[in-house]
Amino acid sequence: MITPTDKTLIPSIQEKIDNLNKPKGSLGRLENLALQVALIQQTLSPKLSHPCHILFGGDHGIEREGVSLSPREVTWQQMKNYDRGGGGVNVFCRQHGFNLRIVDVGVDYDFDHEAYPHIIDRKVAHGTRNFLYEPAMSEAEWQKALEVGKEQVDACVNEGCNIICFGEMGIGNTSPSSILMHLFEDIPLEQCVGCGSGLNSEGVRHKLDVLRQAVENSGFTSSNCTEDASATIRYFVGFEMAAAIGGMLRAAERRLVILVDGFIMTACMLAASKIDKAVTDYAVYGHCGDEGGHRLMLDEMGANPLLHLGLRLGEGTGALVAYPIVQSAVAMLNEMDNFSHAEITKYF
Amino acid sequence: MITPTDKTLIPSIQEKIDNLNKPKGSLGRLENLALQVALIQQTLSPKLSHPCHILFGGDHGIEREGVSLSPREVTWQQMKNYDRGGGGVNVFCRQHGFNLRIVDVGVDYDFDHEAYPHIIDRKVAHGTRNFLYEPAMSEAEWQKALEVGKEQVDACVNEGCNIICFGEMGIGNTSPSSILMHLFEDIPLEQCVGCGSGLNSEGVRHKLDVLRQAVENSGFTSSNCTEDASATIRYFVGFEMAAAIGGMLRAAERRLVILVDGFIMTACMLAASKIDKAVTDYAVYGHCGDEGGHRLMLDEMGANPLLHLGLRLGEGTGALVAYPIVQSAVAMLNEMDNFSHAEITKYF
Repeated sequence: MITPTDKTLIPSIQEKIDNLNKPKGSLGRLENLALQVALIQQTLSPKLSHPCHILFGGDHGIEREGVSLSPREVTWQQMKNYDRGGGGVNVFCRQHGFNLRIVDVGVDYDFDHEAYPHIIDRKVAHGTRNFLYEPAMSEAEWQKALEVGKEQVDACVNEGCNIICFGEMGIGNTSPSSILMHLFEDIPLEQCVGCGSGLNSEGVRHKLDVLRQAVENSGFTSSNCTEDASATIRYFVGFEMAAAIGGMLRAAERRLVILVDGFIMTACMLAASKIDKAVTDYAVYGHCGDEGGHRLMLDEMGANPLLHLGLRLGEGTGALVAYPIVQSAVAMLNEMDNFSHAEITKYF
Repeated sequence: MITPTDKTLIPSIQEKIDNLNKPKGSLGRLENLALQVALIQQTLSPKLSHPCHILFGGDHGIEREGVSLSPREVTWQQMKNYDRGGGGVNVFCRQHGFNLRIVDVGVDYDFDHEAYPHIIDRKVAHGTRNFLYEPAMSEAEWQKALEVGKEQVDACVNEGCNIICFGEMGIGNTSPSSILMHLFEDIPLEQCVGCGSGLNSEGVRHKLDVLRQAVENSGFTSSNCTEDASATIRYFVGFEMAAAIGGMLRAAERRLVILVDGFIMTACMLAASKIDKAVTDYAVYGHCGDEGGHRLMLDEMGANPLLHLGLRLGEGTGALVAYPIVQSAVAMLNEMDNFSHAEITKYF
């Protein structure tokens, strides 16, 4: 059960921000961000400690329908690459001092764990089933994958973490993300499809046909999808997404700042919010891609992401690259002098 | 004399970027940025070293006309605050390991330099003259202020700096910035005024009237302003802006990456580009504020800033907060593995 942040602290945090020696509001988004982090930590002097990034990997049955240009094998190849430290996620984790966990929740490949010691084995299955015909996972698998996310977050908290990001590797995972957005936000499917997959217009048309058929076969609609949100979610998502959803819910329970990555992770946050609305109090959105679909989903969620850099790599890179902005917001709140102490005329 | 960057290296840099193990183009703006920094340094493996920030302070004669809500005394008060380490600029310099120089080029106040040892005294005069009636500075003053900027940049380079930002403190300096934008880009003055000053609509109208009269009195127009660009610039700018312009020109001569702050510093880069067009090869734009005027100026300059965070503090904070993005771009280029070495199928 997630406790919403206690908003009674807002006036005193806002007063502190407004008395920093700068024209009121002149540090823009940094000011809202400082307010949010202070609320999450329930203090006027928040601190960020031991940032962690958890990357979950999993394969998707729907990939068999040709919804992605990239072949399934890229999932396991990239997982090995992360193990060796050569991926984008590794670069940005090193840059910002993040502890990285690489977790196999459902990759369709058997890793040699001696050769790849950094890949944590929590495999629920060798990929999901094909949601064009049947639920991607069973109720038991869903619970297992959620649990993986929760357990990994707990491990981070035990190390002293209070800010966390999640990333994913899973060829095909824009497909379930588009469907979640379509169902939960009642946005026409054609406005949800096409994100970041590199497909040409014919490819997008095919993907749209497959997903439309899948939604129809599933029986879920925007009207009934929230009756049992978990059932809706597990019908479509991959194990890496289920683990991220579990991780987000636990992170909020434990009052961590959750720095949300791009399209896939935003869809996971949307899904998590249908399970427990209060999770969004803890969400800071790192990045909005160029795709109209992502923008639309964020707008519907009332989310205002920190960066717009045209990233579409996934892995959590959009969250990681945004991290220093969160640090800036916290540093502003803790380190800037105030008007009365600095003896400066209030200015505009 | 600034040497434009040698573009013959573009294909080999681009090839390196395209072979990093990620879908082509999927790191968006980081990829363009990596390309630019590599071009500036003429290497496939650029490095950022000893980042420096130079904050110039100066007062403005035009402030006497009521174009700013904030009183002139804020300039010297804030300079003291920076000396003590309590300003926004100090916070973000510390966060990112920038060496900060605080330089008095034209503040209307006599600092006790024993009490404020970090303020470097290069005062050209106690503020500029009022450009509603006469040029803000003489040719000799202009040269002196440019020289201050150049000398400070040289000092940074001697310490090992290859990336630099400039910031300003000078109540009233949105006024000359608006005029430079109006003249050099031939944008109607009313679209250039109103930026970041906190004025209400009556205040903006008054400011617009004053500036329109000033431009008329000066005799400069969009048609004749580039005949002697330096004469145009020195008619309006403050000493802190002149020093920044000199600093930008020297930084480009010495092949530094110039990380450009918000409205005022963008106007200075615009002015510098009218003196030597090649300076813009070295410019990375850090931040675009919410004001339409800044967006418009950047668009006209073909500039695509890294951040949009609604900052309007000045001091160079928009550049400093953007610095880790530049680091991310460089880290991507140097540290990500490539497809052939990582044995990953090219994907999309």
